[in-house]
Amino acid sequence: MDLKKHILNVKDFPIDGIDFKDVTPLLNDADAFAYVIDEMAKFVIECGANVVVAPEARGFLFASAVAYKSHTRFVLVRKPGKLPREVIDIEYTLEYGTNHQQMHKGDIKPDDKVVIIDDVLATGGTIEAIVKLVEMQDGKVEGVSFLIDLPALHDENLLQEYKVQKLVKY
Amino acid sequence: MDLKKHILNVKDFPIDGIDFKDVTPLLNDADAFAYVIDEMAKFVIECGANVVVAPEARGFLFASAVAYKSHTRFVLVRKPGKLPREVIDIEYTLEYGTNHQQMHKGDIKPDDKVVIIDDVLATGGTIEAIVKLVEMQDGKVEGVSFLIDLPALHDENLLQEYKVQKLVKY
Repeated sequence: MDLKKHILNVKDFPIDGIDFKDVTPLLNDADAFAYVIDEMAKFVIECGANVVVAPEARGFLFASAVAYKSHTRFVLVRKPGKLPREVIDIEYTLEYGTNHQQMHKGDIKPDDKVVIIDDVLATGGTIEAIVKLVEMQDGKVEGVSFLIDLPALHDENLLQEYKVQKLVKY
Repeated sequence: MDLKKHILNVKDFPIDGIDFKDVTPLLNDADAFAYVIDEMAKFVIECGANVVVAPEARGFLFASAVAYKSHTRFVLVRKPGKLPREVIDIEYTLEYGTNHQQMHKGDIKPDDKVVIIDDVLATGGTIEAIVKLVEMQDGKVEGVSFLIDLPALHDENLLQEYKVQKLVKY
């Protein structure tokens, strides 16, 4: 399936100079969305994972269905102020600024096998932060899955110690 | 299934006086999550819907898997500044403050049959705003589905013109 037909490039969003990949047309096409979820769930199963982890908000758009399809647990990574109980916190750098990500303490159990899911791999800052949140709780990152890879924005050796799935490259 | 075993009550979050319903333990239990998604997807199919609509971010946690399971289109409602293309906008009142919600213009087609999904029905302000966003684009709201109903916070006649699914009541 040609997924690029369902992804729009929006220039200068959210700020000048950024080419934003808009995945909402893909979500709004049931066949294209099912194709993506099926491919990601296959990857989760191949990785032997029992937990899917995803950051708000766009990671949730895919991880929910992937967790359902692969019958894995679904753990959230959120921005500060969103998770109501005790959290572990990490600061990270992203394509346009710095931010924090948090996970509820105890959501990952020792020896959990984790696949992290997000919509876009840009600089890799977000995903490296999430890897640390998993590893701080003694979980094992078995793989990382992205709908979209933007290889011009990150080192080619990024994430080379993990299984990586990238469904579309620009 | 006793879903309340998987939902935590967190007092005074995000502000004093609010009892926050934390659904992250339910997401972090594959059987409980699958039960909820299966029930919501059955409701979507019973409603004859071809589109699932959900607000960020907690609505996404359920709507993604429900859209996948019921093979419906998945349309996002987001806060200002998040959707990159032309939007329709509505202001609404919620349990603690006022806010805007937006949808990409054209995401709902005339005569689409829509089920709206969210985690919690509190005052109903969010859901009434989303109903309007759908109807402004000539879509038809066939049903609304909530994991959690907080009946003390809204009128008993709220949403009575729609099919309503509520899986847990407090």
